[in-house]
Amino acid sequence: MGGFYIGRERKARKAYGFDEVALVPGEVTLDPNDVDVSWKLGDLTFAIPILVSAMDGVVDTNFAIQMGRLGGLAVLNLGGVQTRYDSPAKAIEEIVNSSSEETVEIIQRVYQAPIKEELIEKRIKEMKKAKILVAVSAIPQQAARFGPTAEEAGADVFVVQATVATAKYYSSKRESLDFGKLCSKLSIPVIVGNCVTYETAYELMQTGIDALLIGVGPGAACTTREVLGVGVPQVTATIDAAAARDEYFKKTGRYVPIITDGGMRIGGDICKALASGADAVMIGSAFARATEAPGKGYHWGMATSDENLPRGARVRVGTTGTLKEIVYGPARLDDGSQNLVWAIRTCMGYCGAANIKEIHEVEMVIAPAIKSEGKFFQRTQWRGIKK
Amino acid sequence: MGGFYIGRERKARKAYGFDEVALVPGEVTLDPNDVDVSWKLGDLTFAIPILVSAMDGVVDTNFAIQMGRLGGLAVLNLGGVQTRYDSPAKAIEEIVNSSSEETVEIIQRVYQAPIKEELIEKRIKEMKKAKILVAVSAIPQQAARFGPTAEEAGADVFVVQATVATAKYYSSKRESLDFGKLCSKLSIPVIVGNCVTYETAYELMQTGIDALLIGVGPGAACTTREVLGVGVPQVTATIDAAAARDEYFKKTGRYVPIITDGGMRIGGDICKALASGADAVMIGSAFARATEAPGKGYHWGMATSDENLPRGARVRVGTTGTLKEIVYGPARLDDGSQNLVWAIRTCMGYCGAANIKEIHEVEMVIAPAIKSEGKFFQRTQWRGIKK
Amino acid sequence: MGGFYIGRERKARKAYGFDEVALVPGEVTLDPNDVDVSWKLGDLTFAIPILVSAMDGVVDTNFAIQMGRLGGLAVLNLGGVQTRYDSPAKAIEEIVNSSSEETVEIIQRVYQAPIKEELIEKRIKEMKKAKILVAVSAIPQQAARFGPTAEEAGADVFVVQATVATAKYYSSKRESLDFGKLCSKLSIPVIVGNCVTYETAYELMQTGIDALLIGVGPGAACTTREVLGVGVPQVTATIDAAAARDEYFKKTGRYVPIITDGGMRIGGDICKALASGADAVMIGSAFARATEAPGKGYHWGMATSDENLPRGARVRVGTTGTLKEIVYGPARLDDGSQNLVWAIRTCMGYCGAANIKEIHEVEMVIAPAIKSEGKFFQRTQWRGIKK
Amino acid sequence: MGGFYIGRERKARKAYGFDEVALVPGEVTLDPNDVDVSWKLGDLTFAIPILVSAMDGVVDTNFAIQMGRLGGLAVLNLGGVQTRYDSPAKAIEEIVNSSSEETVEIIQRVYQAPIKEELIEKRIKEMKKAKILVAVSAIPQQAARFGPTAEEAGADVFVVQATVATAKYYSSKRESLDFGKLCSKLSIPVIVGNCVTYETAYELMQTGIDALLIGVGPGAACTTREVLGVGVPQVTATIDAAAARDEYFKKTGRYVPIITDGGMRIGGDICKALASGADAVMIGSAFARATEAPGKGYHWGMATSDENLPRGARVRVGTTGTLKEIVYGPARLDDGSQNLVWAIRTCMGYCGAANIKEIHEVEMVIAPAIKSEGKFFQRTQWRGIKK
Repeated sequence: MGGFYIGRERKARKAYGFDEVALVPGEVTLDPNDVDVSWKLGDLTFAIPILVSAMDGVVDTNFAIQMGRLGGLAVLNLGGVQTRYDSPAKAIEEIVNSSSEETVEIIQRVYQAPIKEELIEKRIKEMKKAKILVAVSAIPQQAARFGPTAEEAGADVFVVQATVATAKYYSSKRESLDFGKLCSKLSIPVIVGNCVTYETAYELMQTGIDALLIGVGPGAACTTREVLGVGVPQVTATIDAAAARDEYFKKTGRYVPIITDGGMRIGGDICKALASGADAVMIGSAFARATEAPGKGYHWGMATSDENLPRGARVRVGTTGTLKEIVYGPARLDDGSQNLVWAIRTCMGYCGAANIKEIHEVEMVIAPAIKSEGKFFQRTQWRGIKK
Repeated sequence: MGGFYIGRERKARKAYGFDEVALVPGEVTLDPNDVDVSWKLGDLTFAIPILVSAMDGVVDTNFAIQMGRLGGLAVLNLGGVQTRYDSPAKAIEEIVNSSSEETVEIIQRVYQAPIKEELIEKRIKEMKKAKILVAVSAIPQQAARFGPTAEEAGADVFVVQATVATAKYYSSKRESLDFGKLCSKLSIPVIVGNCVTYETAYELMQTGIDALLIGVGPGAACTTREVLGVGVPQVTATIDAAAARDEYFKKTGRYVPIITDGGMRIGGDICKALASGADAVMIGSAFARATEAPGKGYHWGMATSDENLPRGARVRVGTTGTLKEIVYGPARLDDGSQNLVWAIRTCMGYCGAANIKEIHEVEMVIAPAIKSEGKFFQRTQWRGIKK
Repeated sequence: MGGFYIGRERKARKAYGFDEVALVPGEVTLDPNDVDVSWKLGDLTFAIPILVSAMDGVVDTNFAIQMGRLGGLAVLNLGGVQTRYDSPAKAIEEIVNSSSEETVEIIQRVYQAPIKEELIEKRIKEMKKAKILVAVSAIPQQAARFGPTAEEAGADVFVVQATVATAKYYSSKRESLDFGKLCSKLSIPVIVGNCVTYETAYELMQTGIDALLIGVGPGAACTTREVLGVGVPQVTATIDAAAARDEYFKKTGRYVPIITDGGMRIGGDICKALASGADAVMIGSAFARATEAPGKGYHWGMATSDENLPRGARVRVGTTGTLKEIVYGPARLDDGSQNLVWAIRTCMGYCGAANIKEIHEVEMVIAPAIKSEGKFFQRTQWRGIKK
Repeated sequence: MGGFYIGRERKARKAYGFDEVALVPGEVTLDPNDVDVSWKLGDLTFAIPILVSAMDGVVDTNFAIQMGRLGGLAVLNLGGVQTRYDSPAKAIEEIVNSSSEETVEIIQRVYQAPIKEELIEKRIKEMKKAKILVAVSAIPQQAARFGPTAEEAGADVFVVQATVATAKYYSSKRESLDFGKLCSKLSIPVIVGNCVTYETAYELMQTGIDALLIGVGPGAACTTREVLGVGVPQVTATIDAAAARDEYFKKTGRYVPIITDGGMRIGGDICKALASGADAVMIGSAFARATEAPGKGYHWGMATSDENLPRGARVRVGTTGTLKEIVYGPARLDDGSQNLVWAIRTCMGYCGAANIKEIHEVEMVIAPAIKSEGKFFQRTQWRGIKK
């Protein structure tokens, strides 16, 4: 598996992120309309391989309903403002309107209100009423308690998400979550994350989970890499987890899809995640730019509220279009942040990939980031945020 | 062919762009005046190896005439404003004067006017009247129809250009262009593009085309790499296509020149493209800076007008000199954007290359981009655009 | 040991810094509360693996007392303003209030006042009164003289620090410091630095010293790399010195801890230094941001005062929190500059390292710096300095 | 010799510049005062290994006299304003006072005045009167004519300098310079440049020249890399030329020193050039900052005046100190741009190199540029130019 010496008798592999690779067009090209972009989670089939992150600035019940109607899946955070406040909009407003200096403190305070189980039920039922597939998320410490509540209230998918999830967690003070037990208690699919290595991915699949989130440290509103030094860039993390998925499938006949989570801003990044082996992607910041996002152009990472060691930032991305424009276009921006599905279809067409399985096989090259390819004129003025 | 692990059991080649290589002077040097920079396309010989991209902000009939008189070849876009409007200048003006926020929308609207076949004929005849060699371009969907029209009207070269062109395109809804059939129907040379791999280059040559455009994703006004993740940096793409050209020539005796298209801003980039194996280069943004360019210092990619997924940007490059100054000097700027032909001649002289074939053999080194070579003082003030 | 050709018949190893690597989460994860972060120096045990650099803008007696109470070790510079002035605060104020243009000159002048031995004693006693472990530092030229004075006055640790320290120094004009003699004369632990190679680390350990400082050129307020071209990035330097420590331990049974010194701004960098093999880290700029730091948000390197060739800069880092917040939190910033101990604990937990020895074995990957991982929105506004 | 694939069946070596390497301290260190930094050119010995480039903004007769008195060697350009104008100061003033937009044109015009042979004699005699060693330079086209004139007028060293010099130059229109003939005609040492490869260096040495200038494209006021794409970064170019020098010495017993020319801004760069194998360095921009420089803080490349294709820029570097401060200190800046000789001595001391021959053997590592080593605070405000 190669590796380079980084010091005396010590080698390290080089890991790659989205900015370091590019996809090679195929010998055969396809009409984008003929491409199949659907994927499966347990018995559920989704029309598009895009999930929206459980971030309070992005997903509320209304957003989840709109996204569900478009064929995607937005995850509602059961540990956020939606389940702590009867009127979460006011809490969000306070965060959004805070000055830069006080944001972390305000986020920390807002998230100290207790989670109310009746609000869990209420939020899920609000979404079910719209007849969409409902996904909710909890941290491992609360998963055993909230999982059954969520399923009972009608949730279709349960997500357990920590910065780093492993099959083996030890603590002298509290019992760790047994993923196997949780999966057998729930009849709905369980998505678990996040992880970045072959070994952990394989071990988590062995516990019986239904899908795996890949990504530690890459998100736009996450500072894990800075604060802790921990993280593996997403192209390599996805390739490694995909190898575990394929090996596990070969051994057991059970296919556990992997979902690359974090670090993708634009269509090109999503396409690269799929080419690295992802069955679907989970995206936050690109959707924080939707008119429907409760954060009104702001979002913040789930670890920003950590009382001791906040590891996230409030990021302003601006509001640039409707959710429909972001998902299905027509794109009114030329920077790859809108019409993500057509971007996936076009890319797959250029690469000759008829479905998600086939894009896993597309050739990649290591390529310098685009900025060094001659685009030195004032491109920035054309991007992004309307002032 | 080497390659590096980018993840478990998955390797990728490293691809190189212009900013990552430099040319090594030769053991022998030549007087630039003794260097031959001409190239051949079919039976046509051009004095200089420079084509101008079919971009509406750059090439109109007047620009094409001036460029033809200088020995180069400017390509007129048959799918742009020139064939949609009797007075294309007004449409261009609207795009140029739009504010940053509305540009994409305005471009999309302007390009919804229908293409008129009588304007195709009219534009070609306007150019023929000036007794220059005339080149026009169409997308594959319109090539079968516009090709014969163009030849009849007097065009000397027909260009078929898509973001990604392959010999094998499949669609359930429409028939794909048969390049072989097109070439046998037309008696003028057919240039096809764009492609970036050995295999596709070879297969396209086998269809009977007369020259090949190399480049996916690198142009200054193109956002394919960002939006779709697809692209191969130009040095590697050109080397690979040149290998296909040479192999095809060895097998068949027919020499199909390759034209590197996109990503070259300045003389040094052009020289590197030629050293990578290009027989000629196609350039947009450097010529958008000419007084004669209809875009008055602005240009935009052909895919910017895509209704669903615009993949281009309107880029302001400013107007810095006449077309003649850009091609033959004297350069009034020191940044390599003027007197491109003398730059090519001087480079070839320093490298000891007496003609285009010989510059294909010049040694390159992988070298850090110039910015990291100690030029940290305020150089930028000396470049480019007059305010 | 690999290496790459950098020219004809000449190879060089590639050396790595903090921005080029990242830590890989473990298969097993641990509760951060269960992690042991203590380390030993001679017979002394410290609760946390953090020393504070002997910089006059950072450490005065009050700062050292506060840091000692928190379980860390701040080193007082015996060659700085504390021992040259009865009221060092005034000297510091002059430096801090100087304009950028005059800073170097003012620093040079301020440091020309003579060192008074009675002030050495006075400062050490001030600190001892607070019943903390006291560490002081001198340059090699003054170590033989100041070492005994310091021990007598009650110092618990003596640090000898030069930009580059070796076991073999030759001068035609003055006798060089004999580290072996110094160590046998003093009964308190002697820390020596700085060095960056296996060979020098091994030879210095052989002289009998008790710990070694690793790092030439990387500090935020040090310009040795620019001015002299000399330096080895910290990840590689630490790995190499750790190899020497382990080999020396294998041979002799004596464990000489190594302390990575310089170039670490945030929690992630500290974690990477520990993963590279450091037993502890020495930090300057992160602590210059403490309310307790005498420099009021400014600090400057020890070599800035060099009369002939200043090799340091006055750097403004701003004041962002109390020393306690920086060490133990709660962090009020999300950028990794506060609650360093919890960052170390969390990182070790994620990597499955139960103690400092185990984090030495954690896997690293070579990874692109974080900026290229998709964090292009306005993050900077969220960092650091209150205006 | 290694090399990496940059495309199908085509390899390229990686070449390194100053920002990519760093020097490793030695196991033995020396007192900087004990280090010998002298070098020899023919029978002449120079106290310091620093030449000043023949740039009109840097070297006039007064500057050359001052530099000669300090033990260095400043080269006067025989093809510049000094030999075209009786009062060159006025011409320089016009260039310095021009606005950015018109500089290139003004430089081109100023350099169209004819060179007067009587001024060549006059300038050389002005310098000889001060009893310094006098060096002057000409381009190859004028070398045969100006060389004897210069020697007769009293010059001690004759420099022939072109962007790229080779032993074999062919032109259909004019005879090329025969270096062998020139050297046998002159009895003073002849320095020739510039070149960057082993082969050309070796062949030029065989012609009988006395020293070689190394460097194509790296200078701060030179845009050859941008305009022509030609250049080899200086560390690799110097290593390769040094290998030719050593091989030539082995074969013939004649030692032809090599002088690295261009791309060195600060002490660290100079030290790296010496460690790469240079016997001396030639520097422009660092000396343009001297009070004595006629350009008053501005300088421009020799190729900026090219009528057809200017390949240089007027660069403002500001005036930061006297020539003596730049050469021997005391440095009043901390950025490595002053007291260059003490920087060389200190570096050699840290690396254990007692003389120039020994620094050729110092170990280098490939290291990331300093900016990525954690220096993210506002350092820039502390550097350089007084506003």
